[in-house]
Amino acid sequence: MIRAAVIGATGIVGQQFVVALQRHPWFKIVHLAASERSAGKRYREALRDQRGAFQWYCDEAPDSAVLDMPVVDASALEGTEADVYFSGLETEAARELEPRYARHAAVVSTARAFRDEPDVPVLIPGVNSDHLHLVERQQKQRGWKGYIVTQPNCTATGMAITLKPIMDRFGVDQVLMTSLQALSGAGRAGGVLGLDILDNVIPFIPNEEERVEIESRKILGRLGEGAIQPADIRVSATCTRVNVRDGHTEAVYVSTRKPASVEEVRQAMEEYAVSLQPLGLPSAPDHLILVSDDPFRPQPRLDRTAEDGMATVVGRLRRDGALANGIKYVLLSHNTKMGAAKGAVLMAELLKKDGFLRGD
Amino acid sequence: MIRAAVIGATGIVGQQFVVALQRHPWFKIVHLAASERSAGKRYREALRDQRGAFQWYCDEAPDSAVLDMPVVDASALEGTEADVYFSGLETEAARELEPRYARHAAVVSTARAFRDEPDVPVLIPGVNSDHLHLVERQQKQRGWKGYIVTQPNCTATGMAITLKPIMDRFGVDQVLMTSLQALSGAGRAGGVLGLDILDNVIPFIPNEEERVEIESRKILGRLGEGAIQPADIRVSATCTRVNVRDGHTEAVYVSTRKPASVEEVRQAMEEYAVSLQPLGLPSAPDHLILVSDDPFRPQPRLDRTAEDGMATVVGRLRRDGALANGIKYVLLSHNTKMGAAKGAVLMAELLKKDGFLRGD
Amino acid sequence: MIRAAVIGATGIVGQQFVVALQRHPWFKIVHLAASERSAGKRYREALRDQRGAFQWYCDEAPDSAVLDMPVVDASALEGTEADVYFSGLETEAARELEPRYARHAAVVSTARAFRDEPDVPVLIPGVNSDHLHLVERQQKQRGWKGYIVTQPNCTATGMAITLKPIMDRFGVDQVLMTSLQALSGAGRAGGVLGLDILDNVIPFIPNEEERVEIESRKILGRLGEGAIQPADIRVSATCTRVNVRDGHTEAVYVSTRKPASVEEVRQAMEEYAVSLQPLGLPSAPDHLILVSDDPFRPQPRLDRTAEDGMATVVGRLRRDGALANGIKYVLLSHNTKMGAAKGAVLMAELLKKDGFLRGD
Amino acid sequence: MIRAAVIGATGIVGQQFVVALQRHPWFKIVHLAASERSAGKRYREALRDQRGAFQWYCDEAPDSAVLDMPVVDASALEGTEADVYFSGLETEAARELEPRYARHAAVVSTARAFRDEPDVPVLIPGVNSDHLHLVERQQKQRGWKGYIVTQPNCTATGMAITLKPIMDRFGVDQVLMTSLQALSGAGRAGGVLGLDILDNVIPFIPNEEERVEIESRKILGRLGEGAIQPADIRVSATCTRVNVRDGHTEAVYVSTRKPASVEEVRQAMEEYAVSLQPLGLPSAPDHLILVSDDPFRPQPRLDRTAEDGMATVVGRLRRDGALANGIKYVLLSHNTKMGAAKGAVLMAELLKKDGFLRGD
Repeated sequence: MIRAAVIGATGIVGQQFVVALQRHPWFKIVHLAASERSAGKRYREALRDQRGAFQWYCDEAPDSAVLDMPVVDASALEGTEADVYFSGLETEAARELEPRYARHAAVVSTARAFRDEPDVPVLIPGVNSDHLHLVERQQKQRGWKGYIVTQPNCTATGMAITLKPIMDRFGVDQVLMTSLQALSGAGRAGGVLGLDILDNVIPFIPNEEERVEIESRKILGRLGEGAIQPADIRVSATCTRVNVRDGHTEAVYVSTRKPASVEEVRQAMEEYAVSLQPLGLPSAPDHLILVSDDPFRPQPRLDRTAEDGMATVVGRLRRDGALANGIKYVLLSHNTKMGAAKGAVLMAELLKKDGFLRGD
Repeated sequence: MIRAAVIGATGIVGQQFVVALQRHPWFKIVHLAASERSAGKRYREALRDQRGAFQWYCDEAPDSAVLDMPVVDASALEGTEADVYFSGLETEAARELEPRYARHAAVVSTARAFRDEPDVPVLIPGVNSDHLHLVERQQKQRGWKGYIVTQPNCTATGMAITLKPIMDRFGVDQVLMTSLQALSGAGRAGGVLGLDILDNVIPFIPNEEERVEIESRKILGRLGEGAIQPADIRVSATCTRVNVRDGHTEAVYVSTRKPASVEEVRQAMEEYAVSLQPLGLPSAPDHLILVSDDPFRPQPRLDRTAEDGMATVVGRLRRDGALANGIKYVLLSHNTKMGAAKGAVLMAELLKKDGFLRGD
Repeated sequence: MIRAAVIGATGIVGQQFVVALQRHPWFKIVHLAASERSAGKRYREALRDQRGAFQWYCDEAPDSAVLDMPVVDASALEGTEADVYFSGLETEAARELEPRYARHAAVVSTARAFRDEPDVPVLIPGVNSDHLHLVERQQKQRGWKGYIVTQPNCTATGMAITLKPIMDRFGVDQVLMTSLQALSGAGRAGGVLGLDILDNVIPFIPNEEERVEIESRKILGRLGEGAIQPADIRVSATCTRVNVRDGHTEAVYVSTRKPASVEEVRQAMEEYAVSLQPLGLPSAPDHLILVSDDPFRPQPRLDRTAEDGMATVVGRLRRDGALANGIKYVLLSHNTKMGAAKGAVLMAELLKKDGFLRGD
Repeated sequence: MIRAAVIGATGIVGQQFVVALQRHPWFKIVHLAASERSAGKRYREALRDQRGAFQWYCDEAPDSAVLDMPVVDASALEGTEADVYFSGLETEAARELEPRYARHAAVVSTARAFRDEPDVPVLIPGVNSDHLHLVERQQKQRGWKGYIVTQPNCTATGMAITLKPIMDRFGVDQVLMTSLQALSGAGRAGGVLGLDILDNVIPFIPNEEERVEIESRKILGRLGEGAIQPADIRVSATCTRVNVRDGHTEAVYVSTRKPASVEEVRQAMEEYAVSLQPLGLPSAPDHLILVSDDPFRPQPRLDRTAEDGMATVVGRLRRDGALANGIKYVLLSHNTKMGAAKGAVLMAELLKKDGFLRGD
């Protein structure tokens, strides 16, 4: 078994890590770490708020063995206590703590702190698995035995997954995307008030459009000479918030370099969809993409749980008349599953498969 | 006073016509017409359903003088009973009844039955007021003393209003638009169930995208030789339904023919916005467009009532990096005010101003 | 195996029956019956609407073996084709068809058509299992080999389950209940429009309060001399609709005949909760009632899935100061699980256990 | 004109005070006070948050004259700067600052800090206007020239208004009430997250039930010997939060002391409803209570704006079968109009009318 530490274990992403790891066949949670305030308590107790209410935000319940584990102070860990550190830290804390763990161990992070570093991969297994090799350069440059790999922005994830087969077969020139994002993406601290989203749409999510534009080009870029050459795609996004709990909907318009019929794009997506199957990764979906023929799909409530939230569901695939070689579609991606902790666990599975991660 | 008949007076659009007309300085409701089933009742009674509940769907209440009016059978009217017939009929009924009224009188219709006829204008005052002259050809060709003018699809309306000043000053090549449409746009018969839209987005509205693509080109087209030459713009739309009562949000990406800075586009919109003011039309907004600097605007709940729902609110005006000369913005348009009956009343005001409509 | 027919198989309740029965250890679906319009099609096809979209409303998917079954005309069935007929028919159709099947077979119905008949039990396993014996009188009186047993109104279900242990131990004099009911309770035909429930509460559900008042007294009544003596409880309800998908919340105030402390009531509920366990019924929850200490529970979204929707979750158990011996609490009951088809399947399991239902 | 200061002017209640006072015929805003952080800025600037967005929460816009006013530090005011201080402070701040102002001036407060003091009235004009005289005792006891009067809890308000005519004519013994409260009642700081209320009901609002039970008895109590004898009514409440923006719905069950028919109760309500009319108070509704015959009313979205949110709308008035002399109904009260600042302004109008408040 590979020893796993969950950093930021009391937060939403940390809880999702616990759910994704607690019965995992390859990983075993050996440490739950959080802020000093929680340190020393049992996990069960650390999850209670001041008034004693149990603050658990996932649909799946935590196992009682996990609830009995002690919580340790994240800033007291050295990187030698586990083989892999799953980090759900906020940006600032990540910037400080993740490099410390990386001196000795693998760090798999959902934080955006290091995503733009040239030697840090922003990984989606099956999309840019080869970017993993960037960690060799990272280790050499930084003198670390471990390394940091990062999970992309949840809105970039579904878009990159669906663009990958199109790019590989036809090339992609332009991408225009409008997102209708779920409330869970905003988290709890500073989350969207019921008052503000009821009977409403909020047409702006700070920093989100920039993240989508930067990260999608990096993810779809080419690894060469130890550095990533961002994909030569012009990307433009408008990111909005709608009154949906989980599941980001994205309306995507793509201009391909070579002409492609709707049927050819569909076929490219479906052939690509099974590409993770041969690896036998426990958290991988059978299909990275599911293409629906029902014009009323994908819908967040009906499709977000497809393949336990790990499949990106595509619908309304059709011709676009405004772009050259234009294709358009709507996708749905589960922002707190494939787009967050469970996606990061899948990444760790790939690390192990490719020999970047070992147990004792 | 100009004598007005409201056709389909018990339906939602008909009720909106009543609200827009009941204290109007120029128009006087002389007939309320509906199906045979309602004929002979007072309006007050015709609005009650089987269980006796009063079915009124507008925020503004009907005046008691209107409630006391008798309802007549729309199919018994000949076109001689009023100067203008405001029609909120469904497509099929409109196809049958509107031409009958048009033999003698002006018909102002929200139905889509005749919108694609080459001699029927799809009008937005201030955008394509000159298309009015098409009715001269219509009368000649069809041998009518009256005519039919139509209100565009409510999703096309806000888009066409905001494109007009851009097109006039810089030219428009491509438009890609994703809409987040309100529930009231689906009406009541066959409307969206609470079950289906709660915690959800529905990514398809039958026929809507085609309407937007066809009508926006016609509205922005040029009147020549008695026919309209559709604008040479490539338009592509994705229309979705969100859990909002009123107000369509649209994320728009535009490629202009001549380069235009964000500031220039804003200035074009603001200068254009006041163009209806000199006409003194009672239902016209002071500003056809309101441009907001707050990046979190427009929001349906906060902005749909701007200028009594007659202004299109634009926000997030910024550069787009995917299109040549790309500009992008988000707009909000009130689909049951400017996009429906009150917009149609504004159209009738323009008809009167330009001499196409007279009282006795 | 016991041969089961699902009547009204294409409707919502029918689909729920399919989900509850398709992998059932005791029952085997041998017929799917619906209206003449669907007869002759495969189930898979009968579930498609005019535009070809697949109309499936349960979270759990139907098995492909079921989807391949042919649909038969419900009015062509005689009652000899199966051992038990699960009926999700509307009231009128139930009144006509259920007696026909009951001449030969057991009919387990969610319809309200026969609930008020003196010889027809309204059953909740664990609450009034002994009322089953009423079918002996029913068979004798009506000359049937089979019989009809009915599932109560979904709002009465959770209330009766929680009142049962209180009544048994302390007696109940008065019950005042206000419900906050989910949208799925209104079904799809004639269901609540999104327009009408967004940002709203609808304070009336036709017939619902009467059903709760009548049925709860019948369920909690005593079987004597082959007839049921309704419980001597004064019941008063206010039933409202709120913007929740599944799960009825009910605020209950109870006046007990003997004084009872909050702790004693809690203990009575918890001891009673396990009463179905010894029977080994496959669909029975481990706990008919789950009592929560968190004052913010039960919540529909968090608690409706407890024990697959078969447990009634009680919270906020506390003293009431207005009634004599007053106790109050809030309960949550899953209206389309325990309150509908899966509850009816549980009832059939009890019928089998008690010898009222046999396979070949 | 009477000089008014608004304390806590940048908060939600403060903004509502501004709206209710800015064009008031009797009051003139002379000071806008807030925390030290806002002091010294123009109101227009103090309403902007860190990112520069304008934080205004009322449907009605502030006048530009008000926006131009300077904001002063509430803790620097002495009580001599205005004739009346409208306080929308939080409990702690109110406890400190309100007595200071009351040494010299009238304080009309929505805070709960002093509501339980025996010499402080909790006032609803038209319900317990005579409780005003308690301020004479308050002034004498505390040695103040001014005084504090308080606005009740918003959930108690609608209940007390509707109970008053019943109590006066028939006496009231028991009241059981379940509320379905709006999100705006929870305010913005610590408000309910969209994530938590979407597709949900929260069955607990800390302290709310106690407030309703205590305050309703005080409001309906009798003023004697300078002290208030709480009404001898047994009150029990369950307070829940639903996904509604504004407007608290309450299902009320009442046991009267003398028998009363539904028609008699209705008549009592309607006769009482007009009792404020003779006073000519500018903010008073024409009808304190509006009784609806439509069984589907009151609904928050349709009825909360009745008489600008100052009328309590009652529907579903009917017999209750569980209580002795039982009557039940559903009411709707606008929690941020009659239940908050505008109700407090109405209270100040009563103070003036009765000679407790004078300008220079």
